[in-house]
Amino acid sequence: MESIVYLNGDFLPKSEAKISAFDRGFLLADGVYEVVPVIRGRMIDRLPFRERFTNSLRALKMEWPMPREAFEEMMEELIRRNGIEEGGIYVQVTRGVAPARTFEFPKGLEPTVMAFAFAKEILHNTHAEEGVPVVTVEDIRWKRRDIKSIALLGQCMAKEEAVEKGAYEGWMVEDGFVTEGVASSAYIVKDGTVITRPLSNRILPGIRRKVLLELAPAHGLKVEERPFTVEEAYEADEAFLSSATTLIYPIVRIDDRIIGDGRPGPVTKKLRELYVQSALAEATGELREK
Amino acid sequence: MESIVYLNGDFLPKSEAKISAFDRGFLLADGVYEVVPVIRGRMIDRLPFRERFTNSLRALKMEWPMPREAFEEMMEELIRRNGIEEGGIYVQVTRGVAPARTFEFPKGLEPTVMAFAFAKEILHNTHAEEGVPVVTVEDIRWKRRDIKSIALLGQCMAKEEAVEKGAYEGWMVEDGFVTEGVASSAYIVKDGTVITRPLSNRILPGIRRKVLLELAPAHGLKVEERPFTVEEAYEADEAFLSSATTLIYPIVRIDDRIIGDGRPGPVTKKLRELYVQSALAEATGELREK
Repeated sequence: MESIVYLNGDFLPKSEAKISAFDRGFLLADGVYEVVPVIRGRMIDRLPFRERFTNSLRALKMEWPMPREAFEEMMEELIRRNGIEEGGIYVQVTRGVAPARTFEFPKGLEPTVMAFAFAKEILHNTHAEEGVPVVTVEDIRWKRRDIKSIALLGQCMAKEEAVEKGAYEGWMVEDGFVTEGVASSAYIVKDGTVITRPLSNRILPGIRRKVLLELAPAHGLKVEERPFTVEEAYEADEAFLSSATTLIYPIVRIDDRIIGDGRPGPVTKKLRELYVQSALAEATGELREK
Repeated sequence: MESIVYLNGDFLPKSEAKISAFDRGFLLADGVYEVVPVIRGRMIDRLPFRERFTNSLRALKMEWPMPREAFEEMMEELIRRNGIEEGGIYVQVTRGVAPARTFEFPKGLEPTVMAFAFAKEILHNTHAEEGVPVVTVEDIRWKRRDIKSIALLGQCMAKEEAVEKGAYEGWMVEDGFVTEGVASSAYIVKDGTVITRPLSNRILPGIRRKVLLELAPAHGLKVEERPFTVEEAYEADEAFLSSATTLIYPIVRIDDRIIGDGRPGPVTKKLRELYVQSALAEATGELREK
């Protein structure tokens, strides 16, 4: 069955979801997006999603295209219509269709709102159990990586290079330091301490990162927020990544270097377990505000 | 009358030009574009357009979506159907509609080709006669500015800031040096020498820039390709910009500093005159290969 997507007020079969070729999202990448994980048919990490989406919109002088409650109801409707038990919801808002193509932001446009749902195994997943390889690639992105914008060509080129080299993900490197993964946050573990880059304009404020950095110390794990080099990563005891629909995947190889003993390490496994518990608690309504 | 645009093989009224909301141009800014000036109903600077478009496509592992001759015939057809005497043709090619949203490049997609024509006064234009003000803004773009991609959000934010400050254009600054204009190449003139930044990944290889750097020395004007600072620009005798549908505009103010005597300078006027002659020669078939 063809999936149902949301576009500007309508729920449509994917093949009928058409936008103007003059949408500023298509001409100028003038828009933002989010991906929200779905577990047991429920959206996870809702609060940080709201916060980050608000920040991305504001950075582009945009607003929520409808009341937040209505927006989230639309997302839930997508879950229902597509029968998603596990996977994610993708939402994108662009500034809309401008009468003329100008670089400056036209005022008063009707934003374009598009969203779709997809199924994906999150809780039980080979990558999560066996770990994945990453390769380092140059970070060629712009200087406002804190905005989750659809101007993703730099990420596409980096991922293309990583996939060509047989990796699952690319770790982007700038001035010798790992910034983050192409579509994930990056972590290493050394002597029991989880190390990840501090927030700045140079990385996306990962939602899974945020939750993790709360979960880890609450369960006795040490966390250090500082940049780490590629060399440090090679020598780490463990390495892992986090993102919306992976939660946490262990990393077992970086470039041609095996990390630890080449299998998911204990700290990574513990963190994933904690994350899954937290996600299930939210999905079943036991924990965290909806 | 509604303008006629080209989309994937069809000439359509603008309001009917719809693309899939799953086009990689819309989701990921995975595409490139060009703007070709039109004078007296003819395309100008065709050879460097071909060269640059080829380079941008190649950088993204894409090819011309149809034979180049057919592509240019399509552009000429747009000029005819829209009755454009003076203005430009915008062309955009994206990787197309992918079955799933992945960052790496899917293989074998049908590219999306969109093009439109627009009227604009190029030869006689108040900005060209009186000059324009620019303001300096931070260059926050990515590291592959040599690719003319549709990932233009950094440019949009820079232009928004410039326009808010009452300027016609933003001059982007990195490490104290002017890189280029948001949508134009940047030049200053000091003691009769035209100074502009050399080509690299940090700027777009401007087509008007290329033509200018051939015209200037051929007519006895000295050219120096080197980065220049904001301070140097403030102290310049003249300043100007070039782009597809401005050709050359004098700059009479940078931030709060008046350049020269606040009116278009002699070198800028001479260069514009030479450019217009060259463009007219191409338009009337007297010069340069079609």
